[in-house]
Amino acid sequence: MEKQQFNFKTTVRVRTYEVDWQGIVHNTVYLLYCEIGRVEYLNHIGADLDLNRVNSTNRVVLSRNEIDYKSPARSNMEIDVYTRIAEIGNSSFIFEGMLRNADTGVLIAENRAFHVWLNSTASHSIAVPEDFRTIVRKHEKGNLKEILQKP
Amino acid sequence: MEKQQFNFKTTVRVRTYEVDWQGIVHNTVYLLYCEIGRVEYLNHIGADLDLNRVNSTNRVVLSRNEIDYKSPARSNMEIDVYTRIAEIGNSSFIFEGMLRNADTGVLIAENRAFHVWLNSTASHSIAVPEDFRTIVRKHEKGNLKEILQKP
Amino acid sequence: MEKQQFNFKTTVRVRTYEVDWQGIVHNTVYLLYCEIGRVEYLNHIGADLDLNRVNSTNRVVLSRNEIDYKSPARSNMEIDVYTRIAEIGNSSFIFEGMLRNADTGVLIAENRAFHVWLNSTASHSIAVPEDFRTIVRKHEKGNLKEILQKP
Amino acid sequence: MEKQQFNFKTTVRVRTYEVDWQGIVHNTVYLLYCEIGRVEYLNHIGADLDLNRVNSTNRVVLSRNEIDYKSPARSNMEIDVYTRIAEIGNSSFIFEGMLRNADTGVLIAENRAFHVWLNSTASHSIAVPEDFRTIVRKHEKGNLKEILQKP
Repeated sequence: MEKQQFNFKTTVRVRTYEVDWQGIVHNTVYLLYCEIGRVEYLNHIGADLDLNRVNSTNRVVLSRNEIDYKSPARSNMEIDVYTRIAEIGNSSFIFEGMLRNADTGVLIAENRAFHVWLNSTASHSIAVPEDFRTIVRKHEKGNLKEILQKP
Repeated sequence: MEKQQFNFKTTVRVRTYEVDWQGIVHNTVYLLYCEIGRVEYLNHIGADLDLNRVNSTNRVVLSRNEIDYKSPARSNMEIDVYTRIAEIGNSSFIFEGMLRNADTGVLIAENRAFHVWLNSTASHSIAVPEDFRTIVRKHEKGNLKEILQKP
Repeated sequence: MEKQQFNFKTTVRVRTYEVDWQGIVHNTVYLLYCEIGRVEYLNHIGADLDLNRVNSTNRVVLSRNEIDYKSPARSNMEIDVYTRIAEIGNSSFIFEGMLRNADTGVLIAENRAFHVWLNSTASHSIAVPEDFRTIVRKHEKGNLKEILQKP
Repeated sequence: MEKQQFNFKTTVRVRTYEVDWQGIVHNTVYLLYCEIGRVEYLNHIGADLDLNRVNSTNRVVLSRNEIDYKSPARSNMEIDVYTRIAEIGNSSFIFEGMLRNADTGVLIAENRAFHVWLNSTASHSIAVPEDFRTIVRKHEKGNLKEILQKP
C-alpha cells in the first residue's frame, strides 16, 4: 500500500490498557484502529452507511479481515490511520487501512476488510447501491478499482 | 477447512460484554477465541513456546492474520475452537483455527495466523527449531504440510 | 465477605489477552468477571431480568460499582466467582461478588454493584417488583438484607 | 465533585467498539477513561511514576476503585476527563476522576481510585515519597487533603 493512494487519514493514540505484557499493542487492537478509520471515513465522505448498526435500507457485513503486522506499536504512540475503499464489486467492496507511526512514519500494519451488501432480511447479497458507488468514486477518484461481473 | 483435519479442540463460551450493539460478537473477538485455541494447543502438544512472552530461546511473532466470518455468534453461545498447525516452512508456520457453534455445528469463522521465528534480538528470522517440528509432526501426522526451500 | 454467605458460584479462566504488561489481569477485567457471575446468577435463580438488555417490563441500571483488589490474578488462572444479592431496598438492590483463586482459595477481589429499577421510559425509579423479591428471598434465605423505607 | 476542584482535564472520544448492545458505553470502559486521565495527569505534573509498570523505586498499586454512573455515554461522544489527586495519606493516595459530555457538560460518571505505595518487593506499604507529595501539592494547591497519622 502506498500513502499516495489514500485521500483520508485520521489519528489515534495508543491507550495504556491496549498494551499487553510484552509492552506492545495486542494484535487485535490494530484491527480496532482500522475500524475507527472506516467509521470516520464514511462520515467524512458523507455516506449514509453505519457499519455497526442494522437497518433495513443499508445492511452491510464484514465478511473477511486480513492484516499484516509490520512493526509493533507501543503505549502512548500516535498512529496515523489511512483509510480508503480500494475496490467495489457487484455486491461487495474492500476497505484498505494502513497504520503508520505518526512521528516517524514507520509502517505498523496493513489491513484489508471485505464487506458484503445484504438485503434487508440478510438472506442474500444484493448490488451495491448506485448512490454509494457515486460518493465513493468521487472521493477516491482514479484509485478506485471497480470490478463488475455480468450476472 | 474440514473438521477431520483437526486433532485438537477446545471450547469457549461467549461472554456478555463481548457482544456489540447488534447483539452479535464483535469481529475482533473471534480472533481472540482463535488465540485461546493456539495457546491451549501448544500446551496440549507439549511445545515449549509461549506466543505471548518474549524470551531469548523461542521468539515467535504473529506476522499475518486472516479471518473469514461465516455466521455470527451470540451471547452465551458455546463455541468449539478447532486448532492445528497446517504448514511449516523454513522459518515460519501457519496456525489454522475454525470456530463452530458447539450445539448446532454451524460454522462461525475460519482463521489463518502466520507466525515467524526470530533470533533472540529480533533482527532477522531463523529456522524453525527441529524439536518444534518434531513435536508438531507427531501431533498433526499426515495433515501437516512442510514447505522447505533451498536457501 | 464470607464464602458461607454465598449460595451461587461459577468459574472463569483468565484468558491470555486479559493480562497486561505487568503479567497480571488488568484492573477492569475483575469487574467483567463479576458481571459474568451476575448474569449466571440471574439465570440460575430463574429471574426474568436481563441486565444487558433494555425492555419495557424490566429496566435495571447499574448505578455504582465498588471493587477492592486483594491479590493479582495471572494468565490461565481459574477463578471462582461467588455471587449473591446482598440487599434489596425500595427501588434498588446490591449484588456482591467475590473472586478467589480456584486452586488455592486466595482472595482476589471483592465487588459491590448497585442497581436501580427504572420505569419503562427510564425517567424515574420504581419499586423492585414483588416477584423478583420473592425469587431472591427464596435463593438467599436468611442472608438477604431487606431495607424498606416508608415513602 | 466540583469542576473547580480540578486543575487538569483531558479529552477522549468514545470508540465504536466500546459501545454495547444497548447503544451505550459498557460500564467498565468509564474506568478505562479515568485511567487515561490518571496517566496523563502524572505526565502533566511531571511525576516520575508509572502506574502500569513495576520498578523498584516507585511501586504503586490500585487497591480500590469506586464509580458512580450518572448518565450513559454513546458512540462518538467527546468526553472531558477531569483528574486530580484529592487526598494523600501516610502510604496511600486517592485519585478522583470526573467524566462530562464535552459538548453539553452533562455529568457522566465520578470515580475514586485508591492507590497504595509499596516497597520494592511488594511485601508491605511504605510512606509516600516526599518528592511526590511536593509535586502534587504544587499542582493541587489548596484542594489537596493531606491526612497523616502518627504511627
